[in-house]
Amino acid sequence: MSDNQLSHINQRGEASMVDVTEKAVTQREARAEGYVTMKKDTLTMISEGKHAKGDVFAVARIAGIQGAKQTASLIPLCHPLMLSKVQVEFEPQPEQSRVRITSLCKLAGQTGVEMEALTAVSVAALTLFDMCKAVDPGMSIEGVRVTEKLGGKTGHWQGTQP
Amino acid sequence: MSDNQLSHINQRGEASMVDVTEKAVTQREARAEGYVTMKKDTLTMISEGKHAKGDVFAVARIAGIQGAKQTASLIPLCHPLMLSKVQVEFEPQPEQSRVRITSLCKLAGQTGVEMEALTAVSVAALTLFDMCKAVDPGMSIEGVRVTEKLGGKTGHWQGTQP
Amino acid sequence: MSDNQLSHINQRGEASMVDVTEKAVTQREARAEGYVTMKKDTLTMISEGKHAKGDVFAVARIAGIQGAKQTASLIPLCHPLMLSKVQVEFEPQPEQSRVRITSLCKLAGQTGVEMEALTAVSVAALTLFDMCKAVDPGMSIEGVRVTEKLGGKTGHWQGTQP
Amino acid sequence: MSDNQLSHINQRGEASMVDVTEKAVTQREARAEGYVTMKKDTLTMISEGKHAKGDVFAVARIAGIQGAKQTASLIPLCHPLMLSKVQVEFEPQPEQSRVRITSLCKLAGQTGVEMEALTAVSVAALTLFDMCKAVDPGMSIEGVRVTEKLGGKTGHWQGTQP
Amino acid sequence: MSDNQLSHINQRGEASMVDVTEKAVTQREARAEGYVTMKKDTLTMISEGKHAKGDVFAVARIAGIQGAKQTASLIPLCHPLMLSKVQVEFEPQPEQSRVRITSLCKLAGQTGVEMEALTAVSVAALTLFDMCKAVDPGMSIEGVRVTEKLGGKTGHWQGTQP
Amino acid sequence: MSDNQLSHINQRGEASMVDVTEKAVTQREARAEGYVTMKKDTLTMISEGKHAKGDVFAVARIAGIQGAKQTASLIPLCHPLMLSKVQVEFEPQPEQSRVRITSLCKLAGQTGVEMEALTAVSVAALTLFDMCKAVDPGMSIEGVRVTEKLGGKTGHWQGTQP
Repeated sequence: MSDNQLSHINQRGEASMVDVTEKAVTQREARAEGYVTMKKDTLTMISEGKHAKGDVFAVARIAGIQGAKQTASLIPLCHPLMLSKVQVEFEPQPEQSRVRITSLCKLAGQTGVEMEALTAVSVAALTLFDMCKAVDPGMSIEGVRVTEKLGGKTGHWQGTQP
Repeated sequence: MSDNQLSHINQRGEASMVDVTEKAVTQREARAEGYVTMKKDTLTMISEGKHAKGDVFAVARIAGIQGAKQTASLIPLCHPLMLSKVQVEFEPQPEQSRVRITSLCKLAGQTGVEMEALTAVSVAALTLFDMCKAVDPGMSIEGVRVTEKLGGKTGHWQGTQP
Repeated sequence: MSDNQLSHINQRGEASMVDVTEKAVTQREARAEGYVTMKKDTLTMISEGKHAKGDVFAVARIAGIQGAKQTASLIPLCHPLMLSKVQVEFEPQPEQSRVRITSLCKLAGQTGVEMEALTAVSVAALTLFDMCKAVDPGMSIEGVRVTEKLGGKTGHWQGTQP
Repeated sequence: MSDNQLSHINQRGEASMVDVTEKAVTQREARAEGYVTMKKDTLTMISEGKHAKGDVFAVARIAGIQGAKQTASLIPLCHPLMLSKVQVEFEPQPEQSRVRITSLCKLAGQTGVEMEALTAVSVAALTLFDMCKAVDPGMSIEGVRVTEKLGGKTGHWQGTQP
Repeated sequence: MSDNQLSHINQRGEASMVDVTEKAVTQREARAEGYVTMKKDTLTMISEGKHAKGDVFAVARIAGIQGAKQTASLIPLCHPLMLSKVQVEFEPQPEQSRVRITSLCKLAGQTGVEMEALTAVSVAALTLFDMCKAVDPGMSIEGVRVTEKLGGKTGHWQGTQP
Repeated sequence: MSDNQLSHINQRGEASMVDVTEKAVTQREARAEGYVTMKKDTLTMISEGKHAKGDVFAVARIAGIQGAKQTASLIPLCHPLMLSKVQVEFEPQPEQSRVRITSLCKLAGQTGVEMEALTAVSVAALTLFDMCKAVDPGMSIEGVRVTEKLGGKTGHWQGTQP
């Protein structure tokens, strides 16, 4: 297996931002998901609480959306992108005692947006963690992955259900 | 269970940054971990490649350290902190076909640094993902959690091995 | 009247960050307020809407809190500060057809936090504007001012009701 | 009146960045204005001072231009934009004992630039406030509004003189 | 020679971001270089050290790439750009007791990318300085300049060898 | 000479932020300088221009001050610092056909501020370059170095005149 399959590392092993200057501008879309696993009581508190419900997910949603816009400054070799759509959603899953987070990012550009979708999920998950850590410090973030990609050279790609 | 156990949400369900003005400045420390699960070939490529080895982990390490410093701008209700130490390490685990990422953050301050440690791990994981996604788009980030905390009112806390 | 009363401008008319190295660290607090004046229908929509209510103010609140943390990177001669508390609140005032925004910022430090409190109000106001501009582009932001300051050399200061 | 007129809030009341992927790229322009009301002495000091004159407005102008470029990271649901022009101007108005601030933002893009123009005015106003607050803590920021918009679906729009 | 040749300063001497709204989108490219002059021992340590070699240049390279992406937020009158390629390279030059840093930036856009190339070199140089300053505080950064530009109205431009 | 004199690189050659948790908080100060070498006509234009004079140096000064505050986000292994003073000055030197830039940074903290002083000079130099590049693309940035340090374990340090 050849090293140069790692697109961000040149033959001398040095990092570099991939040259996309000549790539076509196409409409691209990526979806990602992830989970915050927590105690049943914590999940109840944030998903059924009389007062809390509104703001807990609202804060994490905004953080995820803002996070997506910071992707190029967080991930060193990511290109700056002009996201045309970011969406972050939460689904409490009481049977698995966790919150499912999903994101959708879109743009018309020269590179894919899966890193933006993953960053949105990760930052939303970290924000949920932050708001619940006083009552449940043992939470964990699981299964952060790309679920679907559209556009670009590879066309339609779907992740295998784990 | 009372809603007001959620320290970041007041009685009207509104988000707010916790008031730490009167809290003592103590030395604090937090460790976090996480995993990037990938194909065996991908792991081989980044951990044994003749050239690539140096830069792949170096890039992700720097991203994690820089990410820790951005925590307060990423996580809405986190306080700005003066980190006095950030460390990020990688351990390829071929048997589980994954990379283990660990972080350590320290400061003398009024609030804990577990969110910084978790952000370091998350951003390092996203960066590894970014560099390998061209050859292995089905990777996932797993088990991002706090493993140990020192300092502050709660003293020494250790996460239960999952 | 002497020019050198402008603390940020030296005798040659050049901007400079005021030297606070020798100033005592004291507990400081500032409150600010401001208004977004809008059509009655717009106010009804965001303050009584069945669904919208939660997120509209939640988004603006988070933006205000995050904005306060960005003050030193927005206002050139502001010192970086370690805010220990930020709070942003909204009060729909139907009789004046406007939303009142109030903020509170605290820290133990060498300089006041009124710019942080004003920035929190301004960014929250801009965010409300952004979310309502499709239905009400003629809104305006009014009366952004400091209402109260505590701590530092000047002690307790209260703004005159306009 | 239907809630879904709020373009940034979906039917479940959740915030989301509006999808502009399919919108045409057109040339867009927005102008905004605002005022910093201050004591007559303060206005005299910054607009007629032998030395100060140069830098006070220069600092606020740069802050406003830089602020416009930070709009998408300050206002959660704003799209990242590639501003092609930002201009900020100041006009001391001694009769009203205030400074008028005006801004102009331009780009060829899929969304309007009024939030960028408003952010430029707001940050310039906050910066003037910061530089004068030692001598005049009772200032206020007034009348921040959009005065004119060009381009996009709505075409030419002008705000009503207040 | 007329003042108005300074494109960023208008006839009243006020700073302004140049209007590029009507400029054609062309493919642009810029190369820059710079040097960090240091003691021979320091150069040996970072370029021949058994362990250090990998990470020292890797850290500076990542910093340079990330710095290029921050150009518009660092340089007040720079336009935000969508860089399509950033590359930073290091060449130890033992005879001159220095490290040569070169950068290449590319984009398809309305303005040149020489400031991005210069910022990449400067931030990479500052990062090398930071990592070596404990052993060699007397280093200096020299000869930071544009070496070549392609695209835009001026076409191909090459700097004169100093 | 041993590799481990490079304080930011551990024995395995990995980058790490130096642990300053236990270091004493002392008052620290650093001065740096640098030069932008340009054509005589360019220097005349920016230093004697009827209109331009005010804003050209004012813009570069603000950029330098703002840059100093961004040091920890630009230089990967720098600690976040609470600068208590930043000052940037310009001196046209017609005989050498250049502008001398000097900076002073101060704080009470656990680490030195020489990187902040160097970053202030570098960003101010880049900003001068940006504003003059249309008339003088062949400029270069020279001699960026620390001239003096006070505080911390090393006490008073002065750079050797080059």
